Amino acid sequence: MATEIPEGASLLIEQIGTLAVVPPGPIVGAQMRTVPVINDASLLVRDGRIAWFGPTSDAPLDEGAYVLSADGGCVIPGLIDPHTHIPFAGDRSGEFTRRLGGETYLSIMEGGGGINSTSRAVRSASFDELVSENLPRLERMLENGVTRVECKSGYGLRPEDELKQLEVIRALDQQQPIDLEATYLGAHAIPGEFADRVDDYLAEIADPALLTEISGRGLARFCDVFCDRGAFNVDQARLVLTRAAEAGLRPKIHADELAQIGATRLAGEVNAISADHLEQIDDGGITALREAGTVAVVLPGTSFFLGIEHCNARRLIEADLPVALATDYNPGSCMIESLPWIMNIACCQLRMVPSEVLAACTANAAAALDVHQRVGAIKVGFDADLVLLDVPSLESWFYTPGLPRVHAVIKSGQIVYRRPEHAR
Amino acid sequence: MATEIPEGASLLIEQIGTLAVVPPGPIVGAQMRTVPVINDASLLVRDGRIAWFGPTSDAPLDEGAYVLSADGGCVIPGLIDPHTHIPFAGDRSGEFTRRLGGETYLSIMEGGGGINSTSRAVRSASFDELVSENLPRLERMLENGVTRVECKSGYGLRPEDELKQLEVIRALDQQQPIDLEATYLGAHAIPGEFADRVDDYLAEIADPALLTEISGRGLARFCDVFCDRGAFNVDQARLVLTRAAEAGLRPKIHADELAQIGATRLAGEVNAISADHLEQIDDGGITALREAGTVAVVLPGTSFFLGIEHCNARRLIEADLPVALATDYNPGSCMIESLPWIMNIACCQLRMVPSEVLAACTANAAAALDVHQRVGAIKVGFDADLVLLDVPSLESWFYTPGLPRVHAVIKSGQIVYRRPEHAR
Repeated sequence: MATEIPEGASLLIEQIGTLAVVPPGPIVGAQMRTVPVINDASLLVRDGRIAWFGPTSDAPLDEGAYVLSADGGCVIPGLIDPHTHIPFAGDRSGEFTRRLGGETYLSIMEGGGGINSTSRAVRSASFDELVSENLPRLERMLENGVTRVECKSGYGLRPEDELKQLEVIRALDQQQPIDLEATYLGAHAIPGEFADRVDDYLAEIADPALLTEISGRGLARFCDVFCDRGAFNVDQARLVLTRAAEAGLRPKIHADELAQIGATRLAGEVNAISADHLEQIDDGGITALREAGTVAVVLPGTSFFLGIEHCNARRLIEADLPVALATDYNPGSCMIESLPWIMNIACCQLRMVPSEVLAACTANAAAALDVHQRVGAIKVGFDADLVLLDVPSLESWFYTPGLPRVHAVIKSGQIVYRRPEHAR
Repeated sequence: MATEIPEGASLLIEQIGTLAVVPPGPIVGAQMRTVPVINDASLLVRDGRIAWFGPTSDAPLDEGAYVLSADGGCVIPGLIDPHTHIPFAGDRSGEFTRRLGGETYLSIMEGGGGINSTSRAVRSASFDELVSENLPRLERMLENGVTRVECKSGYGLRPEDELKQLEVIRALDQQQPIDLEATYLGAHAIPGEFADRVDDYLAEIADPALLTEISGRGLARFCDVFCDRGAFNVDQARLVLTRAAEAGLRPKIHADELAQIGATRLAGEVNAISADHLEQIDDGGITALREAGTVAVVLPGTSFFLGIEHCNARRLIEADLPVALATDYNPGSCMIESLPWIMNIACCQLRMVPSEVLAACTANAAAALDVHQRVGAIKVGFDADLVLLDVPSLESWFYTPGLPRVHAVIKSGQIVYRRPEHAR
């Protein structure tokens, strides 16, 4: 949906019932719990950035501004989803039913299903098919208030198809309003043809020439490894992430999801920007993340979808880790694509309060993608990525899950989505 | 949305990819697990009832029939939500946040919040306000594929306001397509003004004259009691339900949610049509329900929303109880109004397989409302309450939660909802 703001004009958002003044990330502890708000607020956008915000009674005069009413609702920073497996292809609904019948995610993976199943579908899909299958996913995410999404490769599982996935991410980034942040995840699973030759696989996907190409062409900013039982061990993950860092890709780790094998300690050791999952984190892992300033990305949709124990997010918050939340949207372990739904799971099941959940999906999610210097907060000079909600307060939003509450989405100062009944 | 079927014409649903041939309820054990399906099916409706169904190749000729295409998707019986607290008023989002901060549902209730808080809002709302606040809820439920909903009083907590709620249910029933089944729940909580005089309260709300009026005027078919710690004890519940049965109202019980105080044993003793919640059910309770033929209504949205342990639905299914699912939609302990969302929680968290979940929300939900003789199943002669889904299989539906999959809803043979992109 094209914006109707005349070129060069400012945008004034009026009648904001509650403006959630999220500070820049990373934020921890009590700061997560007590995001300040301004009631009866206005917010002015100029040149795509936040130019002013405050009580409406103090609003500066800007006669040429295009005025948008928040109708008394909430305004928050655009939501950021810092862990997804877009783009993917294929359908694993059969595995879903097998899991409900008692098989485990790990046993299905070890039997040639799981990630390898999606890999077959992604390898056989053309570039255009991958784009057209994944574009609607991003369009629906935008309607949920998401303005920035991390996307991973990791289903190609050979250099040419990993590069294809990264090129698809670039194309998707250009074809819709959400900004995408790309992560190279060649070490997502050991492909069938390398079953007993992990080192040979690592030589291919952690080839310095390949990593340098990915980094040099700007195809990814991050490199991630699935470091867990049934996937890559700590030594293998260290090799990949060290080489990636040398090539200019910042480390991320899928850590401590299925078993405790020391992945969060490795996250600290390699100075990972984020460690994600953390259902099995222990005290040593918490200390490692805190000392490295690593963001803890919690993925409660996955534990919900798999029916496994949730990460103890309260323990991480109480340990003063910057906690972020993400969907982990992927065809195997979490087909929930709605970040607001994940936010509700975080409230009801992880006992995070609304303010913590908002901080986790804005300021701290931005920190997990190293973009917290310019997005994820309500601050003058920050990108005007904003969501208008049809609810008077954050707690009302999470209290009524499943209702469409996103009334409009602003991306870099442009109105990129309005819910039909609010469109003019 | 008005139907476009000419009066007197038959309706032929074609191009059904998967027709879920749910048998009439109550169904138990392996029968829940293995709902038969017909692929490439058609279904003929005459005079509001299912007249024929089977493989398309065998379809009878009916040249005057109005034809509706299922576009290769699934067709299932209309979903039935056998436990809601519609109609309600007020907002308990503040309590929601207090609970996330550590307070329990019970402690908030004992402090004058909880049900008594909603009671104040319902008492002060006018009849018309209650209708207009609750009508949109039912409209959204229809869009989720729900064609029958149980609605309870229980927020009036004095005869005149309990009657007001029941009259509101009757008005709501007349103003939209979903059929409503009314339950009298005067014994939902002890209102503040009767705090130390429970027997006096019971004398009012279980007055035989009141119960006879409710039954005689057809304002309710069922009588329910919240029999739990912090609510009514077994003796008090027995008194209410026995008198209600004498007046012609069939017993239901809110049982074994917060504590095990013998409520399911009472359900068996009074031959309740359903016992609902059951998080704390024990072996004696299971035996009592089985011997009485009582339907076990499991409410996983509530345990999700409250962050308490789920009912062990697998144990109930393995004990050959007919298990139904419901939203328990209410302003305190479950603001999830989407039955498909509840169905997904039942899959992911209770490990019910798609076929069991469907049986629970159709045939067994019908049995929980004593309407299983004519709805909740795909059977010739049954009411043509049907849902067309945009998915090739049930497992695909539950595998992709949160996406709008209901393409059309048929109620007694009339097309009462089409998703906008499918409307002509």
